Amino acid sequence: MPMTLKITKSNKTSDNLREDGSFSPKKRIKQIFEPRSVILVGSSKIVEEVGMTSPELFQNIAYNMKKYFRFDFKIVDIEKTNTTPNADLAIIVLPPKESLDWAELVMRAGIQAIIQITGGFDAKFREHYLNLAMKYHVRVLGPNTIMGVVNPTLGLNTTFEPDLMPGKGNISVISQSGGVGAALLDWATTYRIGIGKFTFMGDKVDIDDINVLEYLANDPDTKVIAIYMEGLKAGRRFVEIAKNIIKKNKSILVLKGGITQESARRAMSHTSSIAGSDNIFNAAFKEAGIIRVRDIEELFNSALALAKQPPMKGKHVAVVSNVGGPAILAADAIVREGLELAHLTENTKRTITNRYPGVDVMNPIDIIADARTLRFKFILKQVLMDPNVDGVMIINMLKSCFFKPEDAKVLPKIAEEFKKPVVDVPVGAEDFQLVTDILIDTPIPTYDLPDKAAKALKVLYEYNKILKTYNHTK
Amino acid sequence: MPMTLKITKSNKTSDNLREDGSFSPKKRIKQIFEPRSVILVGSSKIVEEVGMTSPELFQNIAYNMKKYFRFDFKIVDIEKTNTTPNADLAIIVLPPKESLDWAELVMRAGIQAIIQITGGFDAKFREHYLNLAMKYHVRVLGPNTIMGVVNPTLGLNTTFEPDLMPGKGNISVISQSGGVGAALLDWATTYRIGIGKFTFMGDKVDIDDINVLEYLANDPDTKVIAIYMEGLKAGRRFVEIAKNIIKKNKSILVLKGGITQESARRAMSHTSSIAGSDNIFNAAFKEAGIIRVRDIEELFNSALALAKQPPMKGKHVAVVSNVGGPAILAADAIVREGLELAHLTENTKRTITNRYPGVDVMNPIDIIADARTLRFKFILKQVLMDPNVDGVMIINMLKSCFFKPEDAKVLPKIAEEFKKPVVDVPVGAEDFQLVTDILIDTPIPTYDLPDKAAKALKVLYEYNKILKTYNHTK
Repeated sequence: MPMTLKITKSNKTSDNLREDGSFSPKKRIKQIFEPRSVILVGSSKIVEEVGMTSPELFQNIAYNMKKYFRFDFKIVDIEKTNTTPNADLAIIVLPPKESLDWAELVMRAGIQAIIQITGGFDAKFREHYLNLAMKYHVRVLGPNTIMGVVNPTLGLNTTFEPDLMPGKGNISVISQSGGVGAALLDWATTYRIGIGKFTFMGDKVDIDDINVLEYLANDPDTKVIAIYMEGLKAGRRFVEIAKNIIKKNKSILVLKGGITQESARRAMSHTSSIAGSDNIFNAAFKEAGIIRVRDIEELFNSALALAKQPPMKGKHVAVVSNVGGPAILAADAIVREGLELAHLTENTKRTITNRYPGVDVMNPIDIIADARTLRFKFILKQVLMDPNVDGVMIINMLKSCFFKPEDAKVLPKIAEEFKKPVVDVPVGAEDFQLVTDILIDTPIPTYDLPDKAAKALKVLYEYNKILKTYNHTK
Repeated sequence: MPMTLKITKSNKTSDNLREDGSFSPKKRIKQIFEPRSVILVGSSKIVEEVGMTSPELFQNIAYNMKKYFRFDFKIVDIEKTNTTPNADLAIIVLPPKESLDWAELVMRAGIQAIIQITGGFDAKFREHYLNLAMKYHVRVLGPNTIMGVVNPTLGLNTTFEPDLMPGKGNISVISQSGGVGAALLDWATTYRIGIGKFTFMGDKVDIDDINVLEYLANDPDTKVIAIYMEGLKAGRRFVEIAKNIIKKNKSILVLKGGITQESARRAMSHTSSIAGSDNIFNAAFKEAGIIRVRDIEELFNSALALAKQPPMKGKHVAVVSNVGGPAILAADAIVREGLELAHLTENTKRTITNRYPGVDVMNPIDIIADARTLRFKFILKQVLMDPNVDGVMIINMLKSCFFKPEDAKVLPKIAEEFKKPVVDVPVGAEDFQLVTDILIDTPIPTYDLPDKAAKALKVLYEYNKILKTYNHTK
């Protein structure tokens, strides 16, 4: 650790100032997510006994940034230099004391934002960090963000897990927990869920959930916000900003940890969350129009549907399936979710029967194991045209059927002609993979089981109800 | 189709007869699952317009049998021959009329069992098939089994999906639906779930679910029976045989399709099931000690736990986790399933605190992100020794942690010292894969989310209650 720090001159631009010359905090938080120049401050020597600082972690972040970041990136190894180049954003991965020294150094040099990866900051240190941030008008994410931020559009990836890089999309994630955040990022990367911005909140000395939500409210790359939270410090502000976000036709999903007395106690010690009763959260979420989910899988399954498909205007679902048994499980799941099986009009039934006499037009519609592109296309179109149908679940298995993955290519083309949600279920494991490979970049989300697709349609129906409430109160 | 069929002489052995010389049907059903010689009867020319018969399907079954079957296998192409070698089992994949002709031919030649893959048999044809089976004392599975039977121990695989071959294990599956069966087989193969016997029931002219259950009751390779059913024709017999199976310390899981009025209507047209009210099924399952599940994933997740772990004798679960947030989600899931978080004894707490002062011993126990083999080993052992703990959920994430997949190797060794269930959750997607690669052949089942592991523990607790009821009524 160098004892004397050489300060280079600040080159703050007018970008950081409002028109009246005053400081604009919103402008600054943008540099957390959209910097054009980044420095990574770490040590090639220090290994913390308790804590995450290590040369390996430092190198891993450098690896991700060098490989993915599309703009200017520089490494500052504090063992080799005591000066710092200026940049929009500094990523700091050092023990508390060293972090604070270098935070002040980069702030003086004109940095606009800091992501503090490492933790272990006591109350005094945290207060000091906040004071520095206020003094230098610098926004700080963290400390203890563990993984920081991922923005696939710019290739910004401050995580220390090599190549944990999701694809570009319009689902943004906020996690109050490093572990849950890491699991969410793993899930999104592995299952190719397109991400807008990914944020690990950490200890929140400066930037809090509300600030990030304010940023995401105006982020054109964000359509759905998926949040893992354990508690809230400013419930009222949270509800207000959530309402503003939903007014912009975006949607918010929350997975809340600590719903039981015991787990809430643990959440308190984990993220200092004031947990509050679960009913209070439910009421707040309901008022805001936030959709609550049960687990990580449901969070992403729901987010995918909201990101890709329109809201479902009624609760009547048609199932178009090339297999019998899974269609029955689909019908069960639809009813279990509180939705209903659509009653097709006589006209729809007649049109389908005329063309395919062998198809039993009772919903769920079993279009038989030898159905390929033409039959799916014709029947999906008839069903979507039916005024009694609000949404469609397609089941297109490969195994035991004639359907080939490439046959699925026609489905998004039919679906886009109508403003009704369509979800696709290639029931199984390999079948799911093979059909998902075809549909991954289209607006049709895929699910491996009918139960998950039914839940996704339910969320699209709930979202429609939320939007209706907003339109009434406008 | 040859018009004159040459009949070779039967060589039925005394194996087929009871000691008193009478025919033993149980002996014969064994040849469905454990034949030492198999013939596949199909056509290299016939393509059915409606129905599955085709040269491609015929070739695919031949491919699987040639590749995997460890005993004698011969192909009979009816376009090239009008004689048939004798064998234990014939697989027939032809249209109804041709199937019946060849069924009689192979029966006369001394075949002991037939798997009729293809369907399309009307009532008259089905009756004819049954009459033949009775006349020649041959057991018939099908028609319309679609995929037939898989027995990994012998390499028997009568499916027409190339290389859809699960590994050997002690979970046996019975499916009343070809589509659901195909999805289950895909799931088991892809997620490496070890299979005892896999049966697609089809139209059941002869062999029915009860017959298969009777066979599995005495099958040493079957510990857990996972059933997909849409209805039951002999509910009382089903309950009785299920009770006998559970008395042998095996367990039965059922996924029932057609639980709603609409889907039951569809099930009736799909498998001619007399669906009955869902409450009647619940009562029957409860009486028999059958555990009911909600979907395909829960079916296999529960089966894995029952196949690998002991019943859970109480409802108190400890969570040992290297991450905070996922442990909180685990606690939520445990309580949601009706289980409880164990209160560790003071002795356990003290022992852990003495060795690892940084670990907060409140359950869920957060053993901190840098935990590796030694810490997991020590704390898992203390927790399993604790009399207040009935089962343990381990959470060992890799991402954001120091844990490496090979660190998991020690876990089965510790777990096997105690008769308490242990399940493992490497929360996420890639993390789940990497740790599962290490644990797949050990008695510790892995789950990708705490919610699924909590459900698995719940099933182990339910199974214990079932066994207790049986012991009381013995």
